[in-house]
Amino acid sequence: MELKRLLALARGDQAADLLLKNAQVVNVFSGEVHAADVAVAGGVIVGLGKDYAARETVDLDGRFVAPGFIDAHVHIESSMVTPREFARAVVPHGVTTVVTDPHEIANVCGLAGVRFMLDDAQGAPLAMLVNASSCVPATHMETSGATLSADDLATLKPLPGVLGLAEVMNFPGVVYGDDAVLAKLSAFADRVRDGHAPGLTGKRLNAYAATGISSDHECTTLEEAREKLRLGLTIFVREATNARNLKTLIPLITAENERRCCFCTDDRQPADLVDEGSIDHLIRLGVGEGLHPVTAIRMGTLNPAEHFRLYDRGAIAPGRRADLVVFADLQSPRPERVYLEGRLVAANGAMISAAPPAPAASAIPAVSAAVHNTVHVDVGKVDLAIPASGKRIRVIGAIENQLITHHLVMDAARDDGRLVADPTRDLLKMVVIERHRGTGNVGKGFVTGVGLERGAIAGTVAHDHHNLVVIGADDRSMLTAARAVADAGGGQAAAEGDTVLALLPLPIAGLMSDQPIEQVRAGMDRLLRAARQLGSALHDPFMAMSFLALEVIPKLKLTDLGLVDVERFELVPLVLND
Amino acid sequence: MELKRLLALARGDQAADLLLKNAQVVNVFSGEVHAADVAVAGGVIVGLGKDYAARETVDLDGRFVAPGFIDAHVHIESSMVTPREFARAVVPHGVTTVVTDPHEIANVCGLAGVRFMLDDAQGAPLAMLVNASSCVPATHMETSGATLSADDLATLKPLPGVLGLAEVMNFPGVVYGDDAVLAKLSAFADRVRDGHAPGLTGKRLNAYAATGISSDHECTTLEEAREKLRLGLTIFVREATNARNLKTLIPLITAENERRCCFCTDDRQPADLVDEGSIDHLIRLGVGEGLHPVTAIRMGTLNPAEHFRLYDRGAIAPGRRADLVVFADLQSPRPERVYLEGRLVAANGAMISAAPPAPAASAIPAVSAAVHNTVHVDVGKVDLAIPASGKRIRVIGAIENQLITHHLVMDAARDDGRLVADPTRDLLKMVVIERHRGTGNVGKGFVTGVGLERGAIAGTVAHDHHNLVVIGADDRSMLTAARAVADAGGGQAAAEGDTVLALLPLPIAGLMSDQPIEQVRAGMDRLLRAARQLGSALHDPFMAMSFLALEVIPKLKLTDLGLVDVERFELVPLVLND
Repeated sequence: MELKRLLALARGDQAADLLLKNAQVVNVFSGEVHAADVAVAGGVIVGLGKDYAARETVDLDGRFVAPGFIDAHVHIESSMVTPREFARAVVPHGVTTVVTDPHEIANVCGLAGVRFMLDDAQGAPLAMLVNASSCVPATHMETSGATLSADDLATLKPLPGVLGLAEVMNFPGVVYGDDAVLAKLSAFADRVRDGHAPGLTGKRLNAYAATGISSDHECTTLEEAREKLRLGLTIFVREATNARNLKTLIPLITAENERRCCFCTDDRQPADLVDEGSIDHLIRLGVGEGLHPVTAIRMGTLNPAEHFRLYDRGAIAPGRRADLVVFADLQSPRPERVYLEGRLVAANGAMISAAPPAPAASAIPAVSAAVHNTVHVDVGKVDLAIPASGKRIRVIGAIENQLITHHLVMDAARDDGRLVADPTRDLLKMVVIERHRGTGNVGKGFVTGVGLERGAIAGTVAHDHHNLVVIGADDRSMLTAARAVADAGGGQAAAEGDTVLALLPLPIAGLMSDQPIEQVRAGMDRLLRAARQLGSALHDPFMAMSFLALEVIPKLKLTDLGLVDVERFELVPLVLND
Repeated sequence: MELKRLLALARGDQAADLLLKNAQVVNVFSGEVHAADVAVAGGVIVGLGKDYAARETVDLDGRFVAPGFIDAHVHIESSMVTPREFARAVVPHGVTTVVTDPHEIANVCGLAGVRFMLDDAQGAPLAMLVNASSCVPATHMETSGATLSADDLATLKPLPGVLGLAEVMNFPGVVYGDDAVLAKLSAFADRVRDGHAPGLTGKRLNAYAATGISSDHECTTLEEAREKLRLGLTIFVREATNARNLKTLIPLITAENERRCCFCTDDRQPADLVDEGSIDHLIRLGVGEGLHPVTAIRMGTLNPAEHFRLYDRGAIAPGRRADLVVFADLQSPRPERVYLEGRLVAANGAMISAAPPAPAASAIPAVSAAVHNTVHVDVGKVDLAIPASGKRIRVIGAIENQLITHHLVMDAARDDGRLVADPTRDLLKMVVIERHRGTGNVGKGFVTGVGLERGAIAGTVAHDHHNLVVIGADDRSMLTAARAVADAGGGQAAAEGDTVLALLPLPIAGLMSDQPIEQVRAGMDRLLRAARQLGSALHDPFMAMSFLALEVIPKLKLTDLGLVDVERFELVPLVLND
């Protein structure tokens, strides 16, 4: 807005567009909740106080109004829907800005994938800001669909909506000064650079922080978070679908350190977004765990705004974006009205307006083509057999609701000269089939903790390389599930024998549906029912599976190149020679 | 430092330069005080923790170490010494960064004055960062030595050490959208823009804040500070020589809003700098008034660093500048050792090393010439007489330790058809003689609250135009004092009859001495003794006088153009027509 008009509106010399009367303002600057009217015009807040006039007045009758919620770190791809559809899912929950890392699609489609996300977000009723994905591929111990160099990432810097460098997951590369990693840090030296350093401590953590990386969202213990906070990393308290750290970390937070803490969702699946919500859910959980409501709200508003140097939002103050959330209960905020730049976009849990008329990016042929048909696997040629060459094997120990795993050693099960699954001991076979380049790579291993008694599950969502991962009790079921996914051009499936029990197609990069989130959620529910029918007691075995292939989070993971000992950061053999 | 070397140092693979062992670290991130060793190399902190090795180890034996103190807003000219000499005065007090507004010299010498300050600061053991002076002249109701347009100020933006736009004092110009003021705000839209809006409230304050101006250091009441804080202005709590707001404002500060509060000294004279100190003094005062010591230290470290987007300092953390202060008593920090970028620069209240060998800017002829010989007054031609044209007059009511004044109306004193001083009623004559351009302008008025019983005081320090201001009981004394100052090329003087009682020459722009601060302080003491001898009971009548000409601070002020009603923001007649 032209400054003179803004001044005239703030002075009250011109009528505002909208006046929220009789509000209880959650003032994130003063830490108070106080009565005020909020005048809005041209998309920004023009005044707080009394006696403003406006063309439209809404009497909030003592309801609370807080700044729109900001998600400090989220991978939209984990919602399994497009950015526009993601907006439709989170905006009714009061989220008005998300800082996204389009890391998943970048690993499949490279810069074309990032462009798809930016394009698809255009005109959506949500500010989607992008951090450039720093680790594509995550490491050299996997085969991804693309490689992004420092030069590639630098091409993103000038684009509108691009903030900084996303979670630098290759923490050994940082600590030990890998040239390619340092080149990326240097390319974004004048921007915010976010971190990801699970379990890093002591001098190596000092080294990581010394580079200017300024956040971490991977803390799983109080001690870890305390050390990182002391060394200057802003702590993003995460409550994802599979990684739920909030209850563990809330005791860290005091009035004295709260400013260095934010909320983030990282990866949330459709059911959790629909049923629980997004940052609003974290705020409610935080208050339930003992946070002062204003503290919890600051962790989802001002704190991320300050971390990301977004001086135009995160607070209710003159000149800031009129991203506002109205609710009745300060102890458990449930958004009744959500304003984005002064426009009412959601009420009582549902979007108000249809998405604006601009076509979704997926409707643009060139953009669309780049993110479709990304699964290149000839399942008929895949051999899942593992020759028996020893008695004791490394086994991935899955831990419910955690991204980290145990690194176990168990006795192998053998059958006809081969190592096989043994569901009676919850020992399942797991394979990762390279799907981007047709290399024919198949990483093979075993996992415990997933709990299938029979059949198999498969999916092309497999952080971060998103190869085709399959877990099962027998090879036949595994091949059936894998084939169903490959034939759909990506997705997730459950199978038993030759029967596909459930299939959720994810044709966009093998990661996202082109359907509304409710339908995707229904598809997910069918998958989960099938998995439960097959014996798994996990909250979400597909989500769990998708992180068992992520070789940047300890301790033992499987990629298409084989088992990775994350703590040693090297490939290790399946069979122990003892 | 090259990143690979920094990483090697942080990992402990290379020995650091310096290790502060057995420290109690004031951790401004976590709000804790905790034991740690601090390893320093290449001017930055490389690690916090145990087991670092270094070429030099200093055992702090449980002493506290805090980040170097940051003064959020200071006019170095008020120290009456050059920037290099100012550094010598404040660095032993633990101040390692100051954000300065070279506003005084800019009003006298324009951009050449700013250049003098930047050049003179080069190589001094203090980070002097500059905000571009936004109001030169302060208003149209004075004659200054220079005019700086938005285009002029924009030429400063690319210079190293230039941060943003300094205190935008023309708050009516902001609120009512003066084109020249808005042009300056727009020129610095991507930088921090500091505020100055004494007494502004309600919708006009909303307008001021809506422009993106993000601080204020002029709060004189708790209510004023609370309103500004709520509207998003960072509150700089000021404890200057003449404006002492700290005790008034400390009750505002809570754990919940402390992050939005900083300390600043604004204007401190030599005696206060030498005797009380700088930001260290404010921290001690704050703790004495009940602030938690870590809160008080944050207000002088992390908070200003964050406000000014200085991500390289303000905290003890890996990668940040090794600006460090060591002290023994957390309740009353008195710096025992001060490190600037890892170098010990002061110990036990005194500088360690001589200033580096680079010549002071005042030794460079071209720079020096621009800031000398700035007083152009022919005192012999000045007529101080005020014809008696009425009975009741407006009188400036000086308030000790405040920049604001009362706007009084008193009965005039008459003598021989003229309005004269009446020291028996503490009614003194005050004149402001234009000294930059030889216009012959003389603003004339009266003041109460200064308390001279006889004689006069004069000076070329007169915020912000720095014309020659004189206050006295009789015209003869006033002319003597004025002549002494003019003949010295600027300065301050006290006189009685034809006798000069004391004179402090300030040959640099009529504002600063070229002598060490101890000598300037001694000269000031002679002036103050003389003023006391003349009857003034004020702590510092020269400082008080220097702000009685500042027409941006309410309520009644005098410039070379006449009396200014600051609240109406217009020139008003001395004599009332009633």
